[in-house]
Amino acid sequence: MIIHLNKSIDNDKAEALGRQYEAICMHDGARYVLITSSKVKELDANLKSLTEASFISDTDIQLASRQYNPDTRTIDLGVVTLGGQTANTIVITGPCSVESEEQIEQAATLCIELGVKVLRAGAYKPRTSPYTFQGLGLDGLKLLDKMRTKHGLKIITEVRDSTHIDEVIEYADIIQIGAKAMYDQGILRKCGKANKPVLIKRGFGSTLQEFVQSAEFVLSSGNPDVMLCERGIRTFETRTRFTLDLCGVAWLREHTNLPVILDPSHAMGYAYGVSDLARACVAMGVDGLLIETHPNPKAAKSDAEQQLNFEQFRALHKSLGVVAGAVGRHIV
Amino acid sequence: MIIHLNKSIDNDKAEALGRQYEAICMHDGARYVLITSSKVKELDANLKSLTEASFISDTDIQLASRQYNPDTRTIDLGVVTLGGQTANTIVITGPCSVESEEQIEQAATLCIELGVKVLRAGAYKPRTSPYTFQGLGLDGLKLLDKMRTKHGLKIITEVRDSTHIDEVIEYADIIQIGAKAMYDQGILRKCGKANKPVLIKRGFGSTLQEFVQSAEFVLSSGNPDVMLCERGIRTFETRTRFTLDLCGVAWLREHTNLPVILDPSHAMGYAYGVSDLARACVAMGVDGLLIETHPNPKAAKSDAEQQLNFEQFRALHKSLGVVAGAVGRHIV
Amino acid sequence: MIIHLNKSIDNDKAEALGRQYEAICMHDGARYVLITSSKVKELDANLKSLTEASFISDTDIQLASRQYNPDTRTIDLGVVTLGGQTANTIVITGPCSVESEEQIEQAATLCIELGVKVLRAGAYKPRTSPYTFQGLGLDGLKLLDKMRTKHGLKIITEVRDSTHIDEVIEYADIIQIGAKAMYDQGILRKCGKANKPVLIKRGFGSTLQEFVQSAEFVLSSGNPDVMLCERGIRTFETRTRFTLDLCGVAWLREHTNLPVILDPSHAMGYAYGVSDLARACVAMGVDGLLIETHPNPKAAKSDAEQQLNFEQFRALHKSLGVVAGAVGRHIV
Amino acid sequence: MIIHLNKSIDNDKAEALGRQYEAICMHDGARYVLITSSKVKELDANLKSLTEASFISDTDIQLASRQYNPDTRTIDLGVVTLGGQTANTIVITGPCSVESEEQIEQAATLCIELGVKVLRAGAYKPRTSPYTFQGLGLDGLKLLDKMRTKHGLKIITEVRDSTHIDEVIEYADIIQIGAKAMYDQGILRKCGKANKPVLIKRGFGSTLQEFVQSAEFVLSSGNPDVMLCERGIRTFETRTRFTLDLCGVAWLREHTNLPVILDPSHAMGYAYGVSDLARACVAMGVDGLLIETHPNPKAAKSDAEQQLNFEQFRALHKSLGVVAGAVGRHIV
Repeated sequence: MIIHLNKSIDNDKAEALGRQYEAICMHDGARYVLITSSKVKELDANLKSLTEASFISDTDIQLASRQYNPDTRTIDLGVVTLGGQTANTIVITGPCSVESEEQIEQAATLCIELGVKVLRAGAYKPRTSPYTFQGLGLDGLKLLDKMRTKHGLKIITEVRDSTHIDEVIEYADIIQIGAKAMYDQGILRKCGKANKPVLIKRGFGSTLQEFVQSAEFVLSSGNPDVMLCERGIRTFETRTRFTLDLCGVAWLREHTNLPVILDPSHAMGYAYGVSDLARACVAMGVDGLLIETHPNPKAAKSDAEQQLNFEQFRALHKSLGVVAGAVGRHIV
Repeated sequence: MIIHLNKSIDNDKAEALGRQYEAICMHDGARYVLITSSKVKELDANLKSLTEASFISDTDIQLASRQYNPDTRTIDLGVVTLGGQTANTIVITGPCSVESEEQIEQAATLCIELGVKVLRAGAYKPRTSPYTFQGLGLDGLKLLDKMRTKHGLKIITEVRDSTHIDEVIEYADIIQIGAKAMYDQGILRKCGKANKPVLIKRGFGSTLQEFVQSAEFVLSSGNPDVMLCERGIRTFETRTRFTLDLCGVAWLREHTNLPVILDPSHAMGYAYGVSDLARACVAMGVDGLLIETHPNPKAAKSDAEQQLNFEQFRALHKSLGVVAGAVGRHIV
Repeated sequence: MIIHLNKSIDNDKAEALGRQYEAICMHDGARYVLITSSKVKELDANLKSLTEASFISDTDIQLASRQYNPDTRTIDLGVVTLGGQTANTIVITGPCSVESEEQIEQAATLCIELGVKVLRAGAYKPRTSPYTFQGLGLDGLKLLDKMRTKHGLKIITEVRDSTHIDEVIEYADIIQIGAKAMYDQGILRKCGKANKPVLIKRGFGSTLQEFVQSAEFVLSSGNPDVMLCERGIRTFETRTRFTLDLCGVAWLREHTNLPVILDPSHAMGYAYGVSDLARACVAMGVDGLLIETHPNPKAAKSDAEQQLNFEQFRALHKSLGVVAGAVGRHIV
Repeated sequence: MIIHLNKSIDNDKAEALGRQYEAICMHDGARYVLITSSKVKELDANLKSLTEASFISDTDIQLASRQYNPDTRTIDLGVVTLGGQTANTIVITGPCSVESEEQIEQAATLCIELGVKVLRAGAYKPRTSPYTFQGLGLDGLKLLDKMRTKHGLKIITEVRDSTHIDEVIEYADIIQIGAKAMYDQGILRKCGKANKPVLIKRGFGSTLQEFVQSAEFVLSSGNPDVMLCERGIRTFETRTRFTLDLCGVAWLREHTNLPVILDPSHAMGYAYGVSDLARACVAMGVDGLLIETHPNPKAAKSDAEQQLNFEQFRALHKSLGVVAGAVGRHIV
């Protein structure tokens, strides 16, 4: 249950009530809010007298639920705004990994050429083998920072585990929580205290319920700016890398108030299908796309098969505008 | 291996060679063709001397492979043509089941109103429980026949098992092999001898490889007019009925020469997501859509939750034309 | 709901009531029984007056449910009895396919040597490719018949689709419905009228609920002798052929009254794991095992990798007796 | 490729070679070892001259592979030894979570009564909702420490994320990496430097290949004492919580040299199936079992449905000894 305490209640009192009722206590900008397990369906008389409004939840999707707040959240990325009343679909691109200054400079230049406002690239790579390229780490973050300063781009980059969460919070404009880190409470709770938008990728073995509950960790820690990213789930089909779950996207849009970003590159795993899938996502009316591009995909140090080359991306980008227009949206 | 025999070779000789080389023998309109296991990679001298051309296959996707024939097959449905050089995307609609003459008449009228040329409805329902509505059977087929005669619509209807395959072949314009019957050789081989287009639905637990190999049963029996229908696969996610596999669709389009039809209704399982998914499919450039509609979904005897009402379908149909235009295609 | 009609009610009256209440009508040996959808929770006064007893069901698992009949069914296979109060675990073996008289004779001889009473082998093979060995068909059934006559073995063999169900019913002692045919109502309904035990293999993409509901088609057609066979489900893991679902077996044993047989050979797909898995199954206390053996696995025309050679099977068979003893059961 | 450098090569030289050849450098107790990507199949002349032996790997399962070292590793847990030439199957038990001193004392007392030597319980719980019990944290570790001191039990407890890995390393005798943390390199690399055995639970959406590659992170950081724990994977079947992958266990035992522990409690999710599954695991000859028990399961703060009560566990424990004996193993 979500409980809006009376606005007169102060921090100490709110936290004491939180302890008393085994509830998380947060401030939502307007008042202190307690959130209990969704199993709680009634307030006792004492708490009722201190409460402005309360909201019963079916499940532990609470703050993210359209039952609680029917409007899609508006997320201000500085250069552009997503969700809410906008009809914006943001296109974010860049390589899987920062590999060198030359490579990331080429990626940044492509962004500038096409009006892409957010650059993506990983510095801490969550590889499944210890014997492959693990990312440039802090040096990678510094290269991304250089691109921000030089080109005025916003940066989204991934946190792999909580050992370097502080660095990522410092260097990123949007903090990306990777699919393999979706359950990492060390990361989620720190992001909840950060003052930057967070994009959570769905774990490839995670249910929609668990996915949104991960967002609840961030939201209930006080950060309202959470976006969900569907990037393919693991199924029995192995001819493609993963299976992009657009039925799941329809469910998320129906039931949650969080903007939804799609990553067709990781889902497909092969460049040949990415453009068709990207157009499909835009036709669904989603809030954004993450597309991997590389100046020379064959030479990429990670995910070589799925990255588009620049020519492919230019053609895709052009077509996305047309598809967006057909469904009343704008590519930003 | 696919072996094009010399055009001078007659039926008796071709069949004798088929037996000798453990190959399927068929006539493709131009010559007799032998098809062996894809493990065969070389012809012996004798067979070579009788052969016009031969085609090595990586897997037992042979006739359907773009390696063998790079062009998407053209399927003539009488009222309209799909695949090949057309940029047509056909929209097929109708209820899950034929329930009564009144109901199917309403569905047919909606088709006429919107210019939909093919009516879908099931007479033999592959229900998982014996204790629910099982379909009207032959009476249902006769009602569909009436709609064809009265309204000039083409009919697609499903065969559930091989006990009634002859009836379905007789009454349908397009024979639909249901997802649960995808492996049914009794059905597949009969469809291979039928003179009508066949639409095979992917089994929800079937790999893409198996799916296309089911088509190979039909193709190698002599019927070249096969369409594939993706309708959602079964995954760990149960908030939606199935998971529409658009990555798989991208794979099918890259690797096979068969037109691809999408069924978002069964994938989603809930009416609320069907329209967004349908637009996504059209933006991918697929050859067609199957959308379930019902004059009164709540009263439907099967799949009540996923059928669109007529108002919803009219709105969807209108928007599909716009999306199709954005990707250079036409809704037919 | 399952409704036991008064014993005085005759066939005509029972069938009339079935039509009136949209119920399946069967005779269970003692009286006529009506079975409605499980959504029906109450009898009207008229029907109540004609009823001896009635049983509400949670789901459309009705006749197979322990709620209805808590005791595991006893199945008499002629040479041996399973289920019920017996503590018997039957071991069934033989090759994947009947390939030749010599081969099946060797398999039969192995059975006789070890006291195995039921021989398994397929004549109609549900291959996923049309370009591989499809089984000997009726000739295969005749070879199995010869083994029965000559060696006194019982025969279990698979029906692939309903075009040859009559032949399989005629030649088999136990009718095996293959995993790919689990939903085939043409087969299920014919088996419901047959006078022989039926073993249904779980579809590799089928839920436990659907699996048992397939059995309900047979049971509600009047054949009470149904066994369930778990043979591996399809998951994201492809290092093994399928994933043997022993959690599912635990569920089946808790919730249904049908004997459960396990097929570790198809689940594993590789000979090396079959013996360990077979011992695991016996330690769970299941009612039987199907194990594939071949006199020369490398030369097998189907499933070459998963069949045990005779030496491996002899060692396994010996160990199974010891494991069965440890959990209070007997290998038969 | 695994490269055993000459024993005369010292640390500085080994590390320099590691950098030169993009290899991980570790000491295996006898010499420095370099490990490159498995894509490397040949040594150059320079490196060859410095090398004692080298081992080509098919995949990035390298140190854990039986190709490299065919013998199952021996893990010394202090009170008992697993793997290697022992035929020991360890039974580990305790509650899901430490909830109170009284509760964990009861669990410890049960262990002493039955001769169980390792107590399990979680202090940092990886719950999927922020609104439920999250574990006692450090206070929980201290209670476990008390049980070790008082009763002489060894403690296994889970690390949830890398924020508290140092604490878990300090307090645990065996460090358990939870299923949701399987890819967490912050944890894996720290465990690789720890001087204690590590048990890695398979992610429920993780392939066997990825699972063993997680172990490679620990092994290649210098800690040879890694055990793998199969605890159920996520499949389409939801009647049970997860699906215990015993086919996967057979694969692990065939291909890797790491001891394998089974956790049927999490796989099943319901107490009723745990004992049958536990017996199945022992009959497969695995190295150990983790079984959840609780003095009063209904009152448990997490996983209430799957924990055995003490009476059930006593009966199970007794039967496990008999099953182990039937396959030539000992319960310890």
